[in-house]
Amino acid sequence: MSDHLTHAQALLPAFRNRAATWDRERRYAHDNVAALAEAGLMGMTIPRDWGGPGLPLSQVVPIVEAVSGACTLTGRILVEGNMGALSAVMAFGTDAQKALAAELVLAGDKPAICITEPGAGSDATAMTTTATRVPGGWRLDGVKHWITGGGVSKLHLIFARTPDGIRGFLALPGAGLRVARLERTMGLCGMPEAELHLENLFVPDDMVIPDAGFGELIDAYNTQRVGAATIALGVAAEAARLAAARLKDRHQFGRPLAEFQGLQWMLADMDTEIHAARLLIGEATRTERFPDRVKAARAKLMTSEMAVRVVDRALQIFGAEGYGSKTPLERMYRDVRMFTIGGGTAQVLRNQIAAAALDMKLPQTRDGWPAAWQGAIAAE
Amino acid sequence: MSDHLTHAQALLPAFRNRAATWDRERRYAHDNVAALAEAGLMGMTIPRDWGGPGLPLSQVVPIVEAVSGACTLTGRILVEGNMGALSAVMAFGTDAQKALAAELVLAGDKPAICITEPGAGSDATAMTTTATRVPGGWRLDGVKHWITGGGVSKLHLIFARTPDGIRGFLALPGAGLRVARLERTMGLCGMPEAELHLENLFVPDDMVIPDAGFGELIDAYNTQRVGAATIALGVAAEAARLAAARLKDRHQFGRPLAEFQGLQWMLADMDTEIHAARLLIGEATRTERFPDRVKAARAKLMTSEMAVRVVDRALQIFGAEGYGSKTPLERMYRDVRMFTIGGGTAQVLRNQIAAAALDMKLPQTRDGWPAAWQGAIAAE
Amino acid sequence: MSDHLTHAQALLPAFRNRAATWDRERRYAHDNVAALAEAGLMGMTIPRDWGGPGLPLSQVVPIVEAVSGACTLTGRILVEGNMGALSAVMAFGTDAQKALAAELVLAGDKPAICITEPGAGSDATAMTTTATRVPGGWRLDGVKHWITGGGVSKLHLIFARTPDGIRGFLALPGAGLRVARLERTMGLCGMPEAELHLENLFVPDDMVIPDAGFGELIDAYNTQRVGAATIALGVAAEAARLAAARLKDRHQFGRPLAEFQGLQWMLADMDTEIHAARLLIGEATRTERFPDRVKAARAKLMTSEMAVRVVDRALQIFGAEGYGSKTPLERMYRDVRMFTIGGGTAQVLRNQIAAAALDMKLPQTRDGWPAAWQGAIAAE
Amino acid sequence: MSDHLTHAQALLPAFRNRAATWDRERRYAHDNVAALAEAGLMGMTIPRDWGGPGLPLSQVVPIVEAVSGACTLTGRILVEGNMGALSAVMAFGTDAQKALAAELVLAGDKPAICITEPGAGSDATAMTTTATRVPGGWRLDGVKHWITGGGVSKLHLIFARTPDGIRGFLALPGAGLRVARLERTMGLCGMPEAELHLENLFVPDDMVIPDAGFGELIDAYNTQRVGAATIALGVAAEAARLAAARLKDRHQFGRPLAEFQGLQWMLADMDTEIHAARLLIGEATRTERFPDRVKAARAKLMTSEMAVRVVDRALQIFGAEGYGSKTPLERMYRDVRMFTIGGGTAQVLRNQIAAAALDMKLPQTRDGWPAAWQGAIAAE
Repeated sequence: MSDHLTHAQALLPAFRNRAATWDRERRYAHDNVAALAEAGLMGMTIPRDWGGPGLPLSQVVPIVEAVSGACTLTGRILVEGNMGALSAVMAFGTDAQKALAAELVLAGDKPAICITEPGAGSDATAMTTTATRVPGGWRLDGVKHWITGGGVSKLHLIFARTPDGIRGFLALPGAGLRVARLERTMGLCGMPEAELHLENLFVPDDMVIPDAGFGELIDAYNTQRVGAATIALGVAAEAARLAAARLKDRHQFGRPLAEFQGLQWMLADMDTEIHAARLLIGEATRTERFPDRVKAARAKLMTSEMAVRVVDRALQIFGAEGYGSKTPLERMYRDVRMFTIGGGTAQVLRNQIAAAALDMKLPQTRDGWPAAWQGAIAAE
Repeated sequence: MSDHLTHAQALLPAFRNRAATWDRERRYAHDNVAALAEAGLMGMTIPRDWGGPGLPLSQVVPIVEAVSGACTLTGRILVEGNMGALSAVMAFGTDAQKALAAELVLAGDKPAICITEPGAGSDATAMTTTATRVPGGWRLDGVKHWITGGGVSKLHLIFARTPDGIRGFLALPGAGLRVARLERTMGLCGMPEAELHLENLFVPDDMVIPDAGFGELIDAYNTQRVGAATIALGVAAEAARLAAARLKDRHQFGRPLAEFQGLQWMLADMDTEIHAARLLIGEATRTERFPDRVKAARAKLMTSEMAVRVVDRALQIFGAEGYGSKTPLERMYRDVRMFTIGGGTAQVLRNQIAAAALDMKLPQTRDGWPAAWQGAIAAE
Repeated sequence: MSDHLTHAQALLPAFRNRAATWDRERRYAHDNVAALAEAGLMGMTIPRDWGGPGLPLSQVVPIVEAVSGACTLTGRILVEGNMGALSAVMAFGTDAQKALAAELVLAGDKPAICITEPGAGSDATAMTTTATRVPGGWRLDGVKHWITGGGVSKLHLIFARTPDGIRGFLALPGAGLRVARLERTMGLCGMPEAELHLENLFVPDDMVIPDAGFGELIDAYNTQRVGAATIALGVAAEAARLAAARLKDRHQFGRPLAEFQGLQWMLADMDTEIHAARLLIGEATRTERFPDRVKAARAKLMTSEMAVRVVDRALQIFGAEGYGSKTPLERMYRDVRMFTIGGGTAQVLRNQIAAAALDMKLPQTRDGWPAAWQGAIAAE
Repeated sequence: MSDHLTHAQALLPAFRNRAATWDRERRYAHDNVAALAEAGLMGMTIPRDWGGPGLPLSQVVPIVEAVSGACTLTGRILVEGNMGALSAVMAFGTDAQKALAAELVLAGDKPAICITEPGAGSDATAMTTTATRVPGGWRLDGVKHWITGGGVSKLHLIFARTPDGIRGFLALPGAGLRVARLERTMGLCGMPEAELHLENLFVPDDMVIPDAGFGELIDAYNTQRVGAATIALGVAAEAARLAAARLKDRHQFGRPLAEFQGLQWMLADMDTEIHAARLLIGEATRTERFPDRVKAARAKLMTSEMAVRVVDRALQIFGAEGYGSKTPLERMYRDVRMFTIGGGTAQVLRNQIAAAALDMKLPQTRDGWPAAWQGAIAAE
């Protein structure tokens, strides 16, 4: 077991105890963030040159899994403190940008990525936030919503449309970056999901990601998908453990529930699906640079849908108590539902996997098909 | 369309508007109850002799379906104001008991049935609440939990163990009947789920259900299963309507979501399952007296599991907005999860359906099998 | 129980005994056809004016269900001897055409409908068979394949493209109508699936269906969908009965399989799904004239997919014996697989159901969408 | 790519061409066996000391996957020529027994394992075949059925009950070992499934597996589960490839099927499940000696059920042509159905996985529970 995993496990009891509080009070887990940073768990993927331990993804995901089982919210913070926007900056940023990101994250910041807009969910081509050239930098205007961490994050990686295409801009809280509204979400209630208004936001030239367009940044951001899958895995695995324990503890009709074959089989299916998903995630992390897009898509698709099913069954095994808040099941059920949506919906992932299986582009616009087939024919 | 259904539909906009409030504030829908009572929708099943319109179940369920789509909580109140404990009292009570129940319910009371105990979930044989003979009546002692409506209901139908078996007792709020605690549930948050302590509760002889044992009362109570299935159906049907509208309204990649075949097929499956479930419920209501136990079990099993799936898919079609509270999907997702648990878990229902398909008793105790097979052999 | 159902049930033991023979020898069940005709079960839907008993669909489907459980092939003959092409002729034919169809069917003919072509599976608009005006009638040329009954059927209802659209033509075996090839199918092996070559086939004017275009004829043919669903239902219900009996008969680990809760729950799910499908079929048959297109689509979609699942589980309950030919399970597994394909694939049915749920046309061509939305907007 | 895999791939076209023939004629693939042996693909797991190349399982399974996609039957022969009974003999046999097994297998023999009996399917404790001490050896009497390869296999590993427990005996065809009957199976039709009558069968002492009881032999035999899973995987992967090609080739409504999103998503699900299953198999092969029992159980459970689903969907994508024999889909559909049954039913595997997840024994007898819990308590 790695040192980092050992450190993480020491924190789990406290995380587990406080999980219901963040959820009920809809409060960000600042206490946990401090503990993560102190234990060296924020920025584990940051290379040694920038002050981190430079762990590979394959060593980070078991830590995310363990933490997410105790507290989904904290697992999510951990992902964004090790993957996602951070990966994009560390891959394509200038040295100064990397140093800034590393410093913030190692101290506990969970960077925010700002892609989604009210009219552009899965369709980034519809992005309307604009970046206009001004002396010494750019002026950004637009509305971003469902910005995870908006209001608590320091580093923001904002995508906006320049005359030459979509580019990535870094910004810190301040003038021009306004939290206009927070969503009231069903789960992950301690994590703000914000509507950010970019109003005349000035970004100096040295805060523009230099040499990467939308595609490259999203490739780097792909670590986030693996991270999101791992959170869902952690929740599912914890739910299965709780269910197994429940089956041994709870008696009905004069016998432990564990004796009922129907329930045994529910548990066997949960166990098998969890293991398969963990292997898909593991495969997506065995990578040179960024996770392969299709492997990450498979991992996130199967894991997120599996986790919803597994937590559902675990809750069912707890019966009415699973529906009440004396057990963590109902919170886990609400939390885990996010992961078939956020960071690539299950539907978008299916599009991507199908494209790979067919070895062709799958246009989502009405009129994209003839071009798609030219590509497919050219490839043959 | 029946008059009652027309009256119900006039109330739906208000119910729909207020649904989020009861949920968020965890508050009982007293306003809606007053409206239901005034519109003649409480006690629709009460025979004319006792002041009700005496509607058959088959006319009541479309009303429950419609109301539940607007507000799950109000749908649940409607079920308990027309079925469940009320059915048991109207079937087996004395004239005075019937008059009392009718008066209370027609004025808006939602009776509470008190079966479940901490150690006895699906296993009624483990019931430990005792009824002890005292002059003029009985003294009840024990703990009941997950009592739906505890604290707001007036009429309570309490099951307790006498020396001669389990009997049903009626009680009103007062000395000896204490709400010790309320559950914090994931959904149906406006409906109290209470732990009731029966402490030296005196029940006079005229408040004991005279001629029915546990089995008969539960048979009558079976209307509740059909009612619970109907609530789930109403939520699912509303979710499908919302999803269909969303598919037409929301654009991505330059086209309405309705153009995407994958999403079309999700909707087609939702539609088909909803219709099948509605027919199973309809079949269970075409009955002389109480719904057939197996038909009710099939209806509740399929409908409750279908509804969880359908609301899940509808939420998915809304994407992140489905996960937030600007749409009712997330509330519906939490609400509808109750119905594979409460009023007969999906697992208990499968046991009952399998017993019918095998035409034999299926003992749930370790040692019940030899006797079970004697019954099966005798039946051949 | 209707007289016809009673007559059918008397035939079941013989049908059950011979089912494996038709399958193994890939031979049409001529013996059974004779028995069906003699018992008055061919042409039950034919009105009294044309010599039949004029039974409504709702009375025919229980007979189809019962017969299909004993022998899928015979169930299929029964459907085509009561629904499908026959329905279209009896609805839209001339009196002489009706008299001909009635005479043939009452004597045991199973009419063949000739729609499908090699390049046009689900897409009737791609039909290439042509009807050319010649003196006294039409000349038909083209290739039809997957023609059920080709080579044994007498009456053929052939669709071909005229200058004014697709029309329906009647033909009997003879010159110009050649069985070029038979498919070797996985199941329903006694039913020929033929490739028919129409070579200069002359159809006199009085054998053209007069006043109905493709749409109307297909509406009438829709009875076939309900019929196909009913066959699948019959196979599933029989499989469930066999599985229930197996669970009681077979012992493992010193106890009947019926004692194992996991297997009980498999049976409970089979039972519930079968009942739901039967109700959907029943709903589709409660109709003035032809089954409602959407109700028929729902019934066929759910029943055909349910039946594949149910027979699969029943086979599993029989273990290796289910995979061998000493039990009928393996034949039923092969037979039942046809019904998500033939007579409207599950995918085409989903398209149709989605269109109804969205209340709009769902074009399947690339460029049909703008027109589709005009229709939807006009309807609002 | 390993040399062996290269050799295997050279054989695939011929295997693919002949697959339908073995199936239709219900004939063992002797030609393919010769080719396998010549190419060094029989006995790849046999250590160098005994004349084989001593490949680890992890190198054998890709070869099994590739071959099974071309011809399920040949894949199955390959499994039994590298795993299963062979593994048990090579692990626990005497040197002479190992030499015999190696010689036979390297020359093309597919050993047969003889466990199952008419009254003892999943329940080995009910085995009734007896081994009685006679001078110089043992006399075996009993009936074994569903013996894969009975009549073509040379080496038989027979389990029989001695006074000291179940032991393993080796036998070659000859007096006392009679093929009494062959099953007519739905799929894998070229592989005999025999009822073997052991009538006074003499087994000399040197043909008894010396130092292993039933449990150890079954542990070694566990390689077979991984092998069976791999066959199912190979069939599923081939079906997905065929389906992808079909989607690009087949046009409907003026466009390739590949453009239909609903079909794309079917393919995406197939692809994802196939990859997950392959990883589970891979995990089960990364082992010191024999595959871990639980990992093998998970791999076989998920893969076998996945493969049935995937082939079903692929067949559906082919429509009627998938149901006919011009494509291999219908054969694959019949073949693949075996793998949730043979070599550990899905139900038995669920029992084993649940036992591991609960960390306790799960007795299958009525009265085994109290002892089971003592074990569980002792383990805590």
